Amino acid sequence: MNAAVLTIGDELLQGFTVDTNSSWLGTILLPYNIRITKKITVGDKLNDIISETQNILDDKYDFLFVTGGLGPTHDDITKEAFRQLLDDEIIFDENYYLQLKQHFEKRSIKMPESNRSQAMLLKTADVIPNDNGTALGMHLLIKGTHTFIMPGVPGEMRSMVNKYIIPNYIKKTPVENFITIKTAGIMESHLAEKVNGLMEKYSHSFRFAFLPHYSGVSFRINKLDENENLLNVKDEFFKAMLPYAYGINDNTLEEILGLKLIEYKFTIATAESCTGGLIGKRLTDSAGSSEYFLGSVTAYSNQLKTSLLNVPNDIIQKFGAVSEEVALEMAKGVRAKTGADIGISTTGISGPSGGTKTKPVGLVYIGVVTPEKSMVKKYNFNYGRNIHREMTTTAALNITRLAIEQG
Amino acid sequence: MNAAVLTIGDELLQGFTVDTNSSWLGTILLPYNIRITKKITVGDKLNDIISETQNILDDKYDFLFVTGGLGPTHDDITKEAFRQLLDDEIIFDENYYLQLKQHFEKRSIKMPESNRSQAMLLKTADVIPNDNGTALGMHLLIKGTHTFIMPGVPGEMRSMVNKYIIPNYIKKTPVENFITIKTAGIMESHLAEKVNGLMEKYSHSFRFAFLPHYSGVSFRINKLDENENLLNVKDEFFKAMLPYAYGINDNTLEEILGLKLIEYKFTIATAESCTGGLIGKRLTDSAGSSEYFLGSVTAYSNQLKTSLLNVPNDIIQKFGAVSEEVALEMAKGVRAKTGADIGISTTGISGPSGGTKTKPVGLVYIGVVTPEKSMVKKYNFNYGRNIHREMTTTAALNITRLAIEQG
Repeated sequence: MNAAVLTIGDELLQGFTVDTNSSWLGTILLPYNIRITKKITVGDKLNDIISETQNILDDKYDFLFVTGGLGPTHDDITKEAFRQLLDDEIIFDENYYLQLKQHFEKRSIKMPESNRSQAMLLKTADVIPNDNGTALGMHLLIKGTHTFIMPGVPGEMRSMVNKYIIPNYIKKTPVENFITIKTAGIMESHLAEKVNGLMEKYSHSFRFAFLPHYSGVSFRINKLDENENLLNVKDEFFKAMLPYAYGINDNTLEEILGLKLIEYKFTIATAESCTGGLIGKRLTDSAGSSEYFLGSVTAYSNQLKTSLLNVPNDIIQKFGAVSEEVALEMAKGVRAKTGADIGISTTGISGPSGGTKTKPVGLVYIGVVTPEKSMVKKYNFNYGRNIHREMTTTAALNITRLAIEQG
Repeated sequence: MNAAVLTIGDELLQGFTVDTNSSWLGTILLPYNIRITKKITVGDKLNDIISETQNILDDKYDFLFVTGGLGPTHDDITKEAFRQLLDDEIIFDENYYLQLKQHFEKRSIKMPESNRSQAMLLKTADVIPNDNGTALGMHLLIKGTHTFIMPGVPGEMRSMVNKYIIPNYIKKTPVENFITIKTAGIMESHLAEKVNGLMEKYSHSFRFAFLPHYSGVSFRINKLDENENLLNVKDEFFKAMLPYAYGINDNTLEEILGLKLIEYKFTIATAESCTGGLIGKRLTDSAGSSEYFLGSVTAYSNQLKTSLLNVPNDIIQKFGAVSEEVALEMAKGVRAKTGADIGISTTGISGPSGGTKTKPVGLVYIGVVTPEKSMVKKYNFNYGRNIHREMTTTAALNITRLAIEQG
């Protein structure tokens, strides 16, 4: 089955808002074997909305997902466009209006009069509830095309699709035809070498793609033949990608590391310099991280490296703040100061300035000290300040994961 | 003048890649008075590319920007689609092929044979150089529509537009018709009240939009009349939005706070709990932050609040870790431990668990201690863990900015 997406809004055309709705829809519909084959964005212009919708309907898609233009301001004309297109009528839903009014009254806020438009609906449409906002969604079956009209606010749109559209209109059991293996610490070309044979072996009924990011390479497996077993094939690839493969689909490195820490009953603390707190931030992204994360110290100045992390001043003087020796002392220091089982440290030059001939921008030392061992790894990530910090953080989390796994 | 964008790729339809090219184009073209009025995405299907291009050409746009499908693999069929559409010829550019080969040889890499396709070009096209990759761009004037065919890799596409397309084909002097005022610490409706009069005053030749984000409300001013002075009008609105307005366009709160810290010769340090290091991370996003940022301590556990930040244990016991008193002690503590002029602290419940009846999920206390004063603010940001941490960080940076400005 095929689908089209029509997103509406001047904001989207002028680039002030990046359209994430259509890509979210693309991914969420894949397991139901609904392929989006066309996406169109138009501005808040009545004629454009009508003519593009008409074109899509003429092409006989199974589904059409429309987002945007349902708000209470004069720019929001999606309903009027469909009224004209379908020669429909707009009716006022008194009950919903009262419900909205109560909602505002409960919060002791006077409801803006413009919100009256939120209770205006197309007469021939089925209503799709909005659990996260005021604009109702609508379903219309137009010449065989199931058409869903939804607000553009991602949270509202997503919950409509998950809670109402999929159960009530799509009604199928999802079949996972895609799985993504997440890896860290290996380049695309080296990862490819590890699985070239496997890719050949399965090329008859699977398609594969490498998706390189600064934070690691993802490997996507797409099952083309219903009779194949996606999970078994995934397992085979995963094994071949060890120890670099750490998870699948939405798994994050920090989440997987967190699970390892819980499994081994380890606590962790970080001593950061160039990453400025980002490792601690990512470790605490997961709910429940207080079970293993004790805390972190970001010591940007040399003085704080000594006073907060016990790095001996003479080591800083002798080797410099960005050095293997200081990275090691920082990791040891934060472990001692916090009583954590594992200490992670970073010291490097994120740039754009601060580099020298022997210590160029991009250089970074990452230290990891566990109850069993201590190590420092040296990298050069020279892709600009932000990416340097991202890559350093990813490398630090991955080295720690490997250190725990490999004991 | 109007423009259409056609982005090509199964990745975009399936949602594995979010299309940022078209929004970037939308913004970059605004100062040249080129409005994108339609964006279309199709997959790697010859017929779809041809028919959508044909539709766009029939609609007589001034410009058509095409991205994607120029790579060396069998999926990349954009050139073939245009060959068929225009009844053109594909020719082999021997010189470019040798150039590519040398490029690989210099890096001691054998050039993949598939790269031969990168030297294949439409006969009637002007070449647009690619300074960041191997796929050349092309310009075609088709029935009055300037058509640009570019690779989908954002870095390659952007540099083609900036370096070649704008200077050679658009050739106009950019006129800034848009300016965005960034605010923090005020709700959309309250901000609107402050400028309703001004909006009315200028409604004849300006258009305005409020863009609310979790990190603050942006206010966009769009000049419609060439004879008006955008900067003067911006200044007037900015003044009316003080003290909430902190910057314009790409300015970030952390960047503006950094400039204030430099101006006042203040150093800063943070004591974080629920934000897990995010404030320190954002403060160090700006290059040169070592001039004012000394460091940060994330103390997730009560024990570390005492040992690393000198928060008296009896205060934690009496008031709880999430309390006004502990927030204040944390900010004072990090100031004392680091010698910073300003200490910022956060302690709250980001959720999803950990809330109680008196201290619900979302509650957070933010402390700021400067040489002149100390304060603690209480908020309830109950929109999920990540947003809680983002909003808390933004509020902390904004309170600090105001504390410095207001002395």
